[in-house]
Order: sequence, then structure tokens, then C-alpha cells
Amino acid sequence: MERPVCRRDRAEKQVSNATVTPWEVTGEIDYDKLIKQFGTQPITEELLQRIAKHTGGLHPQLRRRLFYSHRDLDVILNEYEKGNKFYLYTGRGPSGPVHIGHLVPWIFTRHLQEKFDAKLYFQVTDDERYLYHEKFSQEDTYNNALDNILDVIAVGFDKNKTKIIIDSRAGGVLYKLAVRIAKHVTLSTAKAVFGFQDSTNIGLAFYPAIQAAPAFLESELTGKSSPCLIPAAIDQDPFWRVTRDVAPKLGFPKPAQIHSKFLPGLGQGGKMSASHPETAIFTTDSAKEAQAKISSSFTGGQATRELHRKLGGNPDICPVFAYHSFFTENDQEVENIYGSCRSGELFCGECKAILAPKVTTFLADHQKKRDAARKVVNDYLIQS
Amino acid sequence: MERPVCRRDRAEKQVSNATVTPWEVTGEIDYDKLIKQFGTQPITEELLQRIAKHTGGLHPQLRRRLFYSHRDLDVILNEYEKGNKFYLYTGRGPSGPVHIGHLVPWIFTRHLQEKFDAKLYFQVTDDERYLYHEKFSQEDTYNNALDNILDVIAVGFDKNKTKIIIDSRAGGVLYKLAVRIAKHVTLSTAKAVFGFQDSTNIGLAFYPAIQAAPAFLESELTGKSSPCLIPAAIDQDPFWRVTRDVAPKLGFPKPAQIHSKFLPGLGQGGKMSASHPETAIFTTDSAKEAQAKISSSFTGGQATRELHRKLGGNPDICPVFAYHSFFTENDQEVENIYGSCRSGELFCGECKAILAPKVTTFLADHQKKRDAARKVVNDYLIQS
Repeated sequence: MERPVCRRDRAEKQVSNATVTPWEVTGEIDYDKLIKQFGTQPITEELLQRIAKHTGGLHPQLRRRLFYSHRDLDVILNEYEKGNKFYLYTGRGPSGPVHIGHLVPWIFTRHLQEKFDAKLYFQVTDDERYLYHEKFSQEDTYNNALDNILDVIAVGFDKNKTKIIIDSRAGGVLYKLAVRIAKHVTLSTAKAVFGFQDSTNIGLAFYPAIQAAPAFLESELTGKSSPCLIPAAIDQDPFWRVTRDVAPKLGFPKPAQIHSKFLPGLGQGGKMSASHPETAIFTTDSAKEAQAKISSSFTGGQATRELHRKLGGNPDICPVFAYHSFFTENDQEVENIYGSCRSGELFCGECKAILAPKVTTFLADHQKKRDAARKVVNDYLIQS
Repeated sequence: MERPVCRRDRAEKQVSNATVTPWEVTGEIDYDKLIKQFGTQPITEELLQRIAKHTGGLHPQLRRRLFYSHRDLDVILNEYEKGNKFYLYTGRGPSGPVHIGHLVPWIFTRHLQEKFDAKLYFQVTDDERYLYHEKFSQEDTYNNALDNILDVIAVGFDKNKTKIIIDSRAGGVLYKLAVRIAKHVTLSTAKAVFGFQDSTNIGLAFYPAIQAAPAFLESELTGKSSPCLIPAAIDQDPFWRVTRDVAPKLGFPKPAQIHSKFLPGLGQGGKMSASHPETAIFTTDSAKEAQAKISSSFTGGQATRELHRKLGGNPDICPVFAYHSFFTENDQEVENIYGSCRSGELFCGECKAILAPKVTTFLADHQKKRDAARKVVNDYLIQS
């Protein structure tokens, strides 16, 4: 299952200067080390085969190990195979515009929704973004939320099986359940897990209960124990650790997780981040903007054409290759790019020129769906 | 205005072992000291006269200084006299059944509603009671809330001007506003003001923002700066201090307060408390139960009839006298009881026998209104 072209993770070095928390992802991330640090499980070959049995072939994000770690995915599959369906829960912190890095788990979540016929709660945490960032007003983060859900809907979630929760407008659904959870989380725990301090505001201190709530919401609303699977980038894991600790105290099943890596930014090192707009391809970028960003991207190529021809490039540290991997369905094609970079045959300029139309085609399609989404927002939103 | 019979406060000694916090009221309370400790203002003769101008005579709870302290009551009256009406906000923590001590601020609030034609938000904090008490489930405190609001409605609030908020069912109204507030309250502040510790749960840590929210709710919902006056027992003051600090940061007027003392329990010392049911007269007590409790009450009388006749009793420490003061409209009658106790003329048994029918008459009337309240609950509740 695991092909050489996809194994960017193999090349990642043990670098100790990376920071991965729900609020900060910096440095060169050692994803294997994160598994140990967070106490999660790698997705084994056996698990991949079990998934493939139900999905009819593996999604590229699993084949290429963009989703690579989990908690209780085996339990979820056990339940599913016994006929006990799970629901999905993922989300978005609306700090600004959506870039293609954000789409990684959403696209995978849509795939899971389709293949497992699963209901989805999608939480947009405008409350947390407001509470965390000094600069934001509630209106700012709510407006971001309204903008961002267009991207969520554009990804193609089934409107009959998807409920989008914008926190600030969903207190009627979330607050009671969050309070039930909050009773079982002390400030000590919140400080230890999230790094909160006495200077943290009381809203942020409470917030982990709000992010935990959708992991139990289906059980709460239906009165029937409903397993939950959370596909999300691995930085969100601390929230799920706390959520899982509380679950048995409230009689809910522990939510399972499947964790993704980050799509790198176009600069050197680090995940794609809206804080560095020149290195992020936003979903609303024009073809020209996207092309310009790709054209200026850092690569794994050598300093001169001569050296590149002689030594070959390093696709494992190259964001351009990462996007080829993300935007290209066909494994052979990705493998060819990988190989011809390694061999020095493919120059960076050429490689970028092959990538650009893949990205602009994707963007044009996404933007069409994004515009269409405006008309159906209310079909998705939980209002309370 | 201030009559001798009403001046229970004069007799209270400077005792330093009293504890007055939102979660604990024990010991002999020195109400003057609380004014200094909490940084509030005594209600002056001048303020009483200004109030009387609008209410046409002073409510017994003001005449008898059961309400005795304030913050910005003068500001509220300034605004009112300029034609800028205020709204009222008070509440109830539903730990168990309502006793007559709880009714003190409610009865006064109803009076203010009537005389000032004021809207009222009444918050029932089942969330806080759940978060604070290990023993309670969310269902317990919600059921208490549903029971307690019958007493609230029985007090006679205008259903066209009163909205009851049961926190666990009002997240849709409260959460967004509470989050706005919470951003401006650090854990440090919450720890200092409320005595929270790292072992406190994150729900309780957030809760002060939920209790603050109704103080701004009318401004929030109408989009128009609406002054708020909070009549409540003085133990709630820490919440309002925090609320007032946040107000200008959010562009809301600081809520004003008017603080009451506690109705004493039938035991020796301390406020009436449901934790000591034998010393509390519950609104649902039968006449027989109430009579029995009054009959067993601690008093300010002497140990023997001879000593009582010789030395006289002390109405200032006597709960039976306090209830005479609470249940008797006529000042002369209260004054007579005070004087004849002091002189040793009135024995405790006789005094109790005079009190009992006042209490049972009140209870019978309240219980009739309480039953009738069941039919109109939905007219009062904010549902979200």
C-alpha cells in the first residue's frame, strides 16, 4: 500500500525544535515523534486494508500517509462491522481566509462521509478565535466563519447529512452539553494540557468543553450511544485527549481520531499558514495569484541547473512536490515526478509549470462551488 | 425615615468570623463592615427620599433597611429622572426548595418593577449549581429550576415585562454574550475574586461571565444602551464587581446594585438556609410545619419567664422578631412588638403565637399563586 513516492514522512528528521499545539505549529515536525509524544497509534497496513475493504480502494491521503495516526480507529471499524454506524466530527478555527492546507482533512472527511454514509458535525470555532486573538472582535470571527463555511460546503459535504455549527450562534445546542463536560475538567488539567496560565481568560479556559461537545452531540441528541470519528490535523489532539477522559464519566463512547499531517507552506519549512499569505494558496486566489506564488515557491532543487542535473533534487523537503502529491490522483504520475526530481532530470521551473494548471484548475472548480454554496448555507447551519 | 424598630443593623456587632461569599454565608455578619469590605455605598437618607418620590412611600424593606447598600443607585435615579428607564435583573441558584429568605429580594424586585414600570430578567443558575455541587446531576438542578420558578412567578412579576432565563436552556441567548465578557476576565481575576483554585472545574471558572450576561442583555438585544439595576443579597456582590469592570470595555453601562441583608434562620445565628431545613420556612411548608418550626425557633428571650420579665428580650438577635418585621406592613405594630419584647412585657411564646398566623396566611396565599403559576410558566421563560 505504501509507495515510495508517498513516503515524505520517512525523510523527516528527528528535529527537536518543532512546536505542535492547537495554537502553534512551527519548526520541522517529526511526525513519528508526535505519535509517541501524543500517545497515538500509527495507521498500520492491517488497518489500511480494513478501511480499503469498506471504501473500495484507499483515498490518496491514506495511500500517501497524509493521514497517518489514529486513536481507536480499530474500535470504530469493529463497531461499523457490527452494524453500529459512526458519525464524523471535524472543524475550523476561522482566523482568516481558507487556504488549501485547510482543505486536507475536509476533503478526506467528505470521502469518509460518502463511503461510510456518515453524518457529520462541522464546528466553526469563532468563539475560540475571538477569545484567543487580542485583535479580533466577535464580529470579525463571525464574519470569517460565514466566509469559511462557503469553502466547507464547496468541498461537497452531503447537505442531508451535514450540520455546520458556528459556535457563537449555537449556544443553545452546545452550552448545556459543554457544562456537563466542564464539570469534569479542572483548571489544573486545562493548564497542563493546553498550556493555559492564570493570565488566560476564563472563556478560553472553558473552551475545551465547547470543542469537546460535538464529539458527544449525536449521542446527546438521539439518546442513543453513537460512536464518533474525528478526522483532523494532529495539532488538535490535546482537545481529544481531554474529551476522551471525560467520555466515560458521562456515559458517552470515547471519540476516535484519525490524524493528518500538515500541508507545507510555499516557504522553507513549516505548515501552510494564513499568517504568511505569500506562502499560502488561498481558495479565493486568482489563477494569476496562485501561479505567481507557485513560481516563487521554495523547492528541494539545487542552487544551479548544473548542480541539480548532477545531484538531483530533494522532493521530500519540497512543497511543490507535496502539492503534486496532494493534487494528483494518479500514483504513477506522482512517482514519475518524484523519480525525475531525484535523478536531476526534472528542473524546478518545469516541475512548477506542471503543478500550476493542476492548482488553478482545482481553484476554478472550487470557486464555482464556493459561489454556489452561498445559496444553500441555511441548509447546513445549526441555528439555535 | 429610619425607625428604631427597623434598626436591627445597629445592634450587629463587629464580628470578624463571618464569611460572606456567593458560596458561603456563615457567622454573625457585620453588614456595615461588608460595605467597607466590598466597597459599596450605604443607602443614605437622601437616596431614600429620592426613591420615595417615585414610589410614593418607601417599601418596608427599605424602611427597615433590609435593603441597605448600593452601587450607582444614584446614577440609575439620575437616568430615570432624565427619562432613561432602567431594567431589573435578579436571580436564583436552584439548589433545592425555595424558603422565605429567598423571597426577600424578589418581593422587593417586584415592587421596583411595579413602581418604575421596569422590565426584569430573572436568571435561574442551574448550570452553576450543577458545576458547584458534586452531588447534583444536570437533571437535578434543572428540576429544581422548574420547581423554583413557580415561586418566582407566584411573587407576582408582570408576565409582559419579565423574562425568566434558566441557564442550561438559554445558551442560545447567553453564550455569545458571555464569551464577549469572558475575554476580559482572566483566571487570575476569577481566582482572586471568587476564590477559585486550580482544582476548580473550567465550567465554574467561566460561570461569572454567564452571571454577568443578563446585566448587559437588554442593551445587547435592543442595541440601545439600557441601564440595569440588580437587587440581590449582598453575597452576590463579587459577581457585579467583575461585571462592572468589564462593562466599559464592551461599551455597556455598568450595572447598578441594591443589596439586601439576609433573613435569619430560625436557629441561632446565620442566614436562613435550605441546608438546615429545620430552621428554614419553605414556601411549600404546610401551616402545621411552619407553626412547628416557629414554635421551636431560637429567640432573643431570656432563659426564664422571671428573667425575661426583669431584663427584657433582645429583638435585635431574634429571628422571630425579624419575621415580624418581614411579614408586617404596619410600622406601629412592629414597633410595639419591638418595645414590648425589650421591656420584658411580651414573652417569646406569645410573640411566636402572633407571628404564626402571619406566616401561615402568607404561605397559603403564596401556595395558591404557586399552583396557578404552573399554567403560565411558558409566558415567562426565555427558550433558546
